[in-house]
Amino acid sequence: MKKTALIMAGGRGERFWPRSRKKLPKQFLSLTDDGKTMLQLTVERLLPIVDLEDIFIATNKDYYPLVMEQLPKLPPRNIICEPMGRNTAPCIALGAAHISKKYEEALMLVLPSDHLIKLTDIFQETLRDACLVAEQDDNIVTVGIKPQYPETGYGYIKFLKDKRHEEGKAYKVDRFVEKPDLERAREYLASGEYLWNSGMFLWKLSTILSKFKDYMPEIYPGLEKIRASIGGAEEKEVLESCFLAFPSISVDYGIMEKAENIYTLPGDFGWDDVGSWLALERVKSLNDDGNVVDGNVVTINSRDCIIQAGDKLIAAVGLENTVIVDTEDATLICNKEKTADIKKLLEEIKNKGMDQYV
Amino acid sequence: MKKTALIMAGGRGERFWPRSRKKLPKQFLSLTDDGKTMLQLTVERLLPIVDLEDIFIATNKDYYPLVMEQLPKLPPRNIICEPMGRNTAPCIALGAAHISKKYEEALMLVLPSDHLIKLTDIFQETLRDACLVAEQDDNIVTVGIKPQYPETGYGYIKFLKDKRHEEGKAYKVDRFVEKPDLERAREYLASGEYLWNSGMFLWKLSTILSKFKDYMPEIYPGLEKIRASIGGAEEKEVLESCFLAFPSISVDYGIMEKAENIYTLPGDFGWDDVGSWLALERVKSLNDDGNVVDGNVVTINSRDCIIQAGDKLIAAVGLENTVIVDTEDATLICNKEKTADIKKLLEEIKNKGMDQYV
Repeated sequence: MKKTALIMAGGRGERFWPRSRKKLPKQFLSLTDDGKTMLQLTVERLLPIVDLEDIFIATNKDYYPLVMEQLPKLPPRNIICEPMGRNTAPCIALGAAHISKKYEEALMLVLPSDHLIKLTDIFQETLRDACLVAEQDDNIVTVGIKPQYPETGYGYIKFLKDKRHEEGKAYKVDRFVEKPDLERAREYLASGEYLWNSGMFLWKLSTILSKFKDYMPEIYPGLEKIRASIGGAEEKEVLESCFLAFPSISVDYGIMEKAENIYTLPGDFGWDDVGSWLALERVKSLNDDGNVVDGNVVTINSRDCIIQAGDKLIAAVGLENTVIVDTEDATLICNKEKTADIKKLLEEIKNKGMDQYV
Repeated sequence: MKKTALIMAGGRGERFWPRSRKKLPKQFLSLTDDGKTMLQLTVERLLPIVDLEDIFIATNKDYYPLVMEQLPKLPPRNIICEPMGRNTAPCIALGAAHISKKYEEALMLVLPSDHLIKLTDIFQETLRDACLVAEQDDNIVTVGIKPQYPETGYGYIKFLKDKRHEEGKAYKVDRFVEKPDLERAREYLASGEYLWNSGMFLWKLSTILSKFKDYMPEIYPGLEKIRASIGGAEEKEVLESCFLAFPSISVDYGIMEKAENIYTLPGDFGWDDVGSWLALERVKSLNDDGNVVDGNVVTINSRDCIIQAGDKLIAAVGLENTVIVDTEDATLICNKEKTADIKKLLEEIKNKGMDQYV
């Protein structure tokens, strides 16, 4: 069956401030040593499975030029612009409208644009297996991640160990569960029956359209209208009015928690959601002092620091466990254990009316 | 007796890097909330005692324009340029040559340019008392500082408690002692017979000239030659050749440790040598979080930090006891307990051939 993909690249992550900004979110940054942006890497590892002309990027209209610039070979019509952020269910509905305008039936892979995967071969193998399951019946397939530790920041997928799909590598999903507390996360990890929800989904166009019809009547008619308007004179107007009216709901909440026939494949391919500056220690190389250093940096008696500089000299003396990120107009210096407070920092910056830094 | 002063402003302190540079040493920086530079403050608190036209500034020739700029009312001929750094004895010899060319006899006050004094009135009163002692006989007077704690970074002056000068507030000096170890510093503090050596001296011109003659024959003939050449066609040549030949020796070592008739006045006027960035906590105001903050700074859950920014936003998250100093081309982030390592940092920077930052 024809394979297509929707890469969701509309996020406005704040956790990589000051490198990430409203105008340049995380998915458009290069955080790895290879210099490629997260969006570029996402497309690259998909190419052996989906032709470039069948890869669609859903993003906020503000980022259209960024996507064009970072993916110069992508057909520009494959960039699907959301007029505003409305979470994943409306984003996927919009993607399905576009792809179903191009193909009557096809497999549709849905992927986030801001995660990293170390073991590309295994990832691709997992996706191929997932396709086999998604092609059958009206199956929904989600790629889960084998948990490494009791993370409380992710949603989990509970699967039924004894209900394997005939394709062998997939399990029937029991239910999607929201971010647990630490005790529960420990139980999940110990049970061996839970996976991290990576936000990667596969389905046929016909499947996802019928799910929207069944479970999201607040979206489905708009999806149909948008689909009909694509390529016409009123495309932009229809999109804006429909999208504005869509509720801001995640696909997990809008469809996954209600649907039947959901399967999951336990993925074990070095996945990393690169959730904060701390992730750089996992995805970049460390020097002898345990520092992750880029740019014009001199350190004295400093260790286990993450220092991201540009041309300006950053001199670190006697520091431990500190994140330093320098940009043209702002420098962050943050205790490694307090990176979650970057959110508070941005609120404070907004409260002070210093919007130019956000 | 006519009062004159020599302010020594040739130092190249590294401890305020990156604000202080070879081209802009500490004495030319403003480190207090009033915005005045240390040199300006030094001159200002001397003015009720010495006329501006009798205040001489000894500095490296490279800093001549800086002195002109910071002290626009000072007669330019009062800026005495050292061709190179040669420690305090040659500097004082040069100053004495110039001042004794202007006045046959006068009191000469010698002061560092990079210390702060909180209680100006008491300081001036102490200086006036010191002048009374220095006018008599061939007395040398040094202003000592009542020690507050067992500092190991300063030299000490041991005075004879029971040998008070007839002027009442001065004591005969027993000896000058070099920087002690901690145990000895504690003994000094407990004894009540030791003062910190502030580097402030007073004497008559005739006194200091005779001391150079008696104790520093490697300098005295040069001093005479320089004195004779001042205002003549060969002034510059003579200065350069004589100064180059001078040994690099401190006045403490060259004269104080040998001379008789030395008196000291215990000073208690809020003296601070502003020896490192940490001093800012003593000389500037702290905010509610115990931070000393200047410039474009936002802090979240950070305390007891010293943050010196300019226009660029410095954002501190979850930090404690950290010094952050931002300048145009370099940013220092330093553990408060490791400010002594800034010296190592500058060595490393030089070793890397990055001389533009020094």
